[in-house]
Amino acid sequence: MKIDGVSTRTIWLAEDGRTVEIIDQTRLLHDFVVARLGSLEDAARAITGMQVRGAPLIGVTAAYGVCLALARDASDAALRRAVEALGATRPTAVNLAWALAEMTRLLAPLPAAERVGAAYARAAGLADQDVALNAAIGGHGLGLLRDLQAAKGGTLNILTHCNAGWLATVDWGTALAPIYRAHDAGLAIHVWVDETRPRNQGAALTAWELGRHGVDHTVIVDNAGGHLMQRGLVDLCLTGSDRTTAAGDVCNKIGTYLKALAAKDTGVPFYVALPSSTIDWRLRDGLAEIPIEERSAREVSHVVGRDAAGQVVDVAVVPAGARAANPAFDVTPARLVSGLITERGIAAANADGLLELFPEHRGAA
Amino acid sequence: MKIDGVSTRTIWLAEDGRTVEIIDQTRLLHDFVVARLGSLEDAARAITGMQVRGAPLIGVTAAYGVCLALARDASDAALRRAVEALGATRPTAVNLAWALAEMTRLLAPLPAAERVGAAYARAAGLADQDVALNAAIGGHGLGLLRDLQAAKGGTLNILTHCNAGWLATVDWGTALAPIYRAHDAGLAIHVWVDETRPRNQGAALTAWELGRHGVDHTVIVDNAGGHLMQRGLVDLCLTGSDRTTAAGDVCNKIGTYLKALAAKDTGVPFYVALPSSTIDWRLRDGLAEIPIEERSAREVSHVVGRDAAGQVVDVAVVPAGARAANPAFDVTPARLVSGLITERGIAAANADGLLELFPEHRGAA
Repeated sequence: MKIDGVSTRTIWLAEDGRTVEIIDQTRLLHDFVVARLGSLEDAARAITGMQVRGAPLIGVTAAYGVCLALARDASDAALRRAVEALGATRPTAVNLAWALAEMTRLLAPLPAAERVGAAYARAAGLADQDVALNAAIGGHGLGLLRDLQAAKGGTLNILTHCNAGWLATVDWGTALAPIYRAHDAGLAIHVWVDETRPRNQGAALTAWELGRHGVDHTVIVDNAGGHLMQRGLVDLCLTGSDRTTAAGDVCNKIGTYLKALAAKDTGVPFYVALPSSTIDWRLRDGLAEIPIEERSAREVSHVVGRDAAGQVVDVAVVPAGARAANPAFDVTPARLVSGLITERGIAAANADGLLELFPEHRGAA
Repeated sequence: MKIDGVSTRTIWLAEDGRTVEIIDQTRLLHDFVVARLGSLEDAARAITGMQVRGAPLIGVTAAYGVCLALARDASDAALRRAVEALGATRPTAVNLAWALAEMTRLLAPLPAAERVGAAYARAAGLADQDVALNAAIGGHGLGLLRDLQAAKGGTLNILTHCNAGWLATVDWGTALAPIYRAHDAGLAIHVWVDETRPRNQGAALTAWELGRHGVDHTVIVDNAGGHLMQRGLVDLCLTGSDRTTAAGDVCNKIGTYLKALAAKDTGVPFYVALPSSTIDWRLRDGLAEIPIEERSAREVSHVVGRDAAGQVVDVAVVPAGARAANPAFDVTPARLVSGLITERGIAAANADGLLELFPEHRGAA
């Protein structure tokens, strides 16, 4: 999407043809900083430290991490080590495993001398594929938004949680792709942006990218969405997904489940936008089968922000020595999800609905 | 309750017999500061600025605010002005209106010369009455906690939202009174403390008072509670209430509704502890009839915390110029509430349940 009129992606090959550049998303609330990844270790650190985040972008970053490793050493052992190191960075995102499996499938059979070129070509291909997928998601979601607005009249109020915008992908975003399409098409929309503690990706990233694109929005605390839905101030909830089961259970940023419950209780449609690469076709029961990443307690005990002097600092919000827990994701059962917006269309959130759009997975189910 | 072994209340008459002292709760995460209220304006400012908060403590502070006004001018007009000024400080808390009505009922008929003494006596009486009520709530809640622990065995995990502890009352607290009673009785308990954005009363106040009293607890973001309930890590939700309808709808800190939905969805008991003064017997439908206070957007756009140097600062967590909305309370429908813990016992959350414990309100219903 555009930043101050300049089309930008979240990750791209640098002019040297070897290193990779990313938008450093840990600094985005305060500064627009491009970071250069020169090695496997840089790529792994960018994922672990959430300079890049969002399942699709993590997958592409991992693919480029394999490129960076092979550019230094294209042996079988180096390929194996790279895939292992990158695979360990974030346990929940299925795109990560998917992208690494794809790189291994392509590269392992090749002679070492051919691997580097093939790796960079495939990583670039994965990036382009993500952009195309998200554009397609946006197109299908636009149809939904048009229908909802035709039924309602007036401004359509959409609540979103975390950041499933273009910053979470290579471009367009997942949950925000329909919103950008609708905005560009002239529909009157307004977005309620959940702050999304503990890392505040909503307040810091979603608000930033919507603002830069000119989409009307209001930041709220994560506690407020239920109340807004009770009062009729939300017409649609729209989130992304880090991992979706074959039965339509959605693993997404912690707190998504609470918004889905409120949507169900108040009759607000709750849709999830996702590329099919985030569907884990082996999984049936999201609650029983998806491991939930426990992140650092410091993300809870401290909040990052700009002080009065414009410096980025983190401040403690709990008494000294207080203990904190930090589960990073939760699982929204399929029964709470109105539909899954994929690159092939909108599926009912159940096994039949997904298999209708993705019949090639019938065998696996 | 005790702070470092010293029994302390949240509000008390100063040694001069005229001014009033409070714990300044806006500074409590960082400093233990006692503030002196010398005038009606001080008292009103303490309520508006949330140096005192929590429905019961607001009521007692308002009563002392009337005392401070009358100590300067005991005329009818001064009494009327004081009640008006204090009544406008916080629109949602019913205790405020209740305490002011009680002071007016007592003082208006008296000759001006007798008002000051009567006012101070009644304010002290209201404070003592709050302590006795909360101790009784704690006793009834203790029975519930004993039963739940007997059924479960092992440590009882209790989730609470906002601060309904002794800091929200004159002493003991409402939601935390049963927890203090259980802890003092040797029950094994652990408290999940919702951070409670935007003002972080959970992270700042509940964690502080539980820690000072030695109760095991863990701070979590407001997004996490649903996930913990799904995983069987919460045995009971226990919150306070700012205002309760005759039908058992509960108006409490924004986000309470979301936790009640999750408790319902996962089969976790959801109890609300409240002195009967927070029941508004005229109201039936909380959603339709309770006005919700909209507070400053800055509470959302900025977070208060301690920086690395130990200074209290607020930091911006949204991009410059981003808009924010800040509804301060929500309404949890009675159908989501397992029971209401009052000073007279535990009532079913409906009109019959409440009237059984408070038959004197049958006429009004």
